[in-house]
Amino acid sequence: MYTSSSSVSISSSNLKIGIVGFGSFAQFLAQTMIKQGHKLTATSRTDYTDLCHSLGVSFFRDIEAFLEAENDVVLICTSIMSLSEVVKSMPFHCLKRPTLFVDVLSVKEYPKTFLLQVLPEESDVLCTHPMFGPESGKNGWKGLTCVFEKVRIRNQSTCSSFLQIFQTEGCQMLEMSCEEHDKVAAKSQFLTHTIGRVLSEMAIESTPMNTKGFETLIQLKENTMKDSFDLYSGLFLRNRFAKQELENLELALQKVKQKLLDRMNEEQDK
Amino acid sequence: MYTSSSSVSISSSNLKIGIVGFGSFAQFLAQTMIKQGHKLTATSRTDYTDLCHSLGVSFFRDIEAFLEAENDVVLICTSIMSLSEVVKSMPFHCLKRPTLFVDVLSVKEYPKTFLLQVLPEESDVLCTHPMFGPESGKNGWKGLTCVFEKVRIRNQSTCSSFLQIFQTEGCQMLEMSCEEHDKVAAKSQFLTHTIGRVLSEMAIESTPMNTKGFETLIQLKENTMKDSFDLYSGLFLRNRFAKQELENLELALQKVKQKLLDRMNEEQDK
Ligand SMILES: NC(=O)c1ccc[n+]([C@@H]2O[C@H](COP(=O)([O-])OP(=O)(O)OC[C@H]3O[C@@H](n4cnc5c(N)ncnc54)[C@H](OP(=O)(O)O)[C@@H]3O)[C@@H](O)[C@H]2O)c1
Ligand SMILES: NC(=O)c1ccc[n+]([C@@H]2O[C@H](COP(=O)([O-])OP(=O)(O)OC[C@H]3O[C@@H](n4cnc5c(N)ncnc54)[C@H](OP(=O)(O)O)[C@@H]3O)[C@@H](O)[C@H]2O)c1
Repeated sequence: MYTSSSSVSISSSNLKIGIVGFGSFAQFLAQTMIKQGHKLTATSRTDYTDLCHSLGVSFFRDIEAFLEAENDVVLICTSIMSLSEVVKSMPFHCLKRPTLFVDVLSVKEYPKTFLLQVLPEESDVLCTHPMFGPESGKNGWKGLTCVFEKVRIRNQSTCSSFLQIFQTEGCQMLEMSCEEHDKVAAKSQFLTHTIGRVLSEMAIESTPMNTKGFETLIQLKENTMKDSFDLYSGLFLRNRFAKQELENLELALQKVKQKLLDRMNEEQDK
Repeated sequence: MYTSSSSVSISSSNLKIGIVGFGSFAQFLAQTMIKQGHKLTATSRTDYTDLCHSLGVSFFRDIEAFLEAENDVVLICTSIMSLSEVVKSMPFHCLKRPTLFVDVLSVKEYPKTFLLQVLPEESDVLCTHPMFGPESGKNGWKGLTCVFEKVRIRNQSTCSSFLQIFQTEGCQMLEMSCEEHDKVAAKSQFLTHTIGRVLSEMAIESTPMNTKGFETLIQLKENTMKDSFDLYSGLFLRNRFAKQELENLELALQKVKQKLLDRMNEEQDK
């Protein structure tokens, strides 16, 4: 049987992906990208030479050499709070050709605005947020959501090939403006992390008489605390909708408390 | 094969159980008790004649007739907040013989103290708290915890037969003082309900981009709101350890907020 080369679908095209910031989320993504046959390079503040060697990823301590390596995609996986420092120090003149820059930050308006400001005009920009991580995605990505906005795409083919990475794993792809993402994420993800951190601050512990509900809170606390404080503070400081949600949470707690006090007073008035 | 009648184990002895307060939790318990072959009667503020008829439970509108019916066990399933009103109005002189009084309230010191004060001295008292309900126990009670304290037990056999109801279903039986129960429950169950009610006050809703963590919070909100406000306020007003936990929750939220603000200030100082 013969297949013409044109039948090689975009999904099987192998990308050269250079990862910036090879922390835990990047390592998690890299595993799947490697499995799919993409060719990875990486650079990071910390020296990951040994880890990368064992994964089959070329690690560059030198950012110039990293940018010269002719990647199709530069995938930014730094913490939200270090994005500007990391990207501003990149010597873009070393890029040998127009490149697709993708970020995976858990907030989206901020990297969109920032990347449009600082990246070379000829670079394409795709903003993504895979709504899962090493914990929730440990048994595969099927059914998990990947949000994205095609911010500045001229090379459709590279962009599609990149998004195909998530599609191939069965992710639900959700095209959404960065602004809309941040509105919704403040009400959901930021709130979830805040509650997880509050529970951790209270040092809740498993008891011999856990209800099912309490068990889910212990789990939530543990999963939340696996993410760095850098990530959590980024969810707050780099999402302009988060402050309101923190206020809403405080207000809701006060309302619940007031209802209890009202009930107490009703009783005393009897 | 012959078995002597003494080999009929206590677990298979059928009890006559009279339920006081036939609301949703009582109905949930009743299903299993009926399945096990116990004979049930009930009384309640609301007229449950038709529902009881369909379940094979004799319903008494008249509390005197209910108490005269020679139950082995009177099972108190009223709301925490109505316990005193309901029990104080019971004409105990109608009891034909010493009876085991059991309560299932979600707080334990309060009914213990109260029942010891008002019940006839010849009544036995068993305080229990099945740590599950219609939602968490809908697929059976196996592995779910039932906390109890034998407060005043002279008829060991009736008490054992009653506890056997939970053992037969595979519950984990946890003997614990009512005081210890309340300490632990304030830190776990009351906290869980409070967070569920706070989330409901915030009107959180499923989004197209839920994380797994956020999905567990939506579930928690929904399960919490299935319980009455009467139940929730009882967890607070009738557990002397709850107030401290509400304060701990407020404090923890303030600490988390302060950490975010500190991070923001650090950044501005740079
Ligand atoms: N964890 C998740 O579940 C998840 C899910 C979706 C999206 N994300 C996003 O993915 C990104 C990475 O997340 P993460 O979980 O790996 O943890 P993170 O704490 O948000 O970020 C860690 C990464 O940031 C780099 N970094 C931090 N401070 C730096 C600095 N001052 N200079 C240079 N690099 C710095 C680290 O470099 P070194 O490792 O070299 O120190 C590491 O690569 C974040 O933007 C996050 O919002 C995470
Ligand atoms: N739901 C659970 O998952 C769960 C788990 C463990 C223990 N418990 C405990 O079980 C008990 C019952 O709980 P529940 O979920 O059914 O809901 P609940 O709202 O706590 O109690 C409802 C019951 O209380 C009665 N009641 C309320 N106010 C009354 C009043 N003023 N006078 C007379 N009776 C009154 C109701 O009678 P009518 O129905 O006749 O109106 C109904 O039988 C509570 O003590 C609760 O703490 C509940």
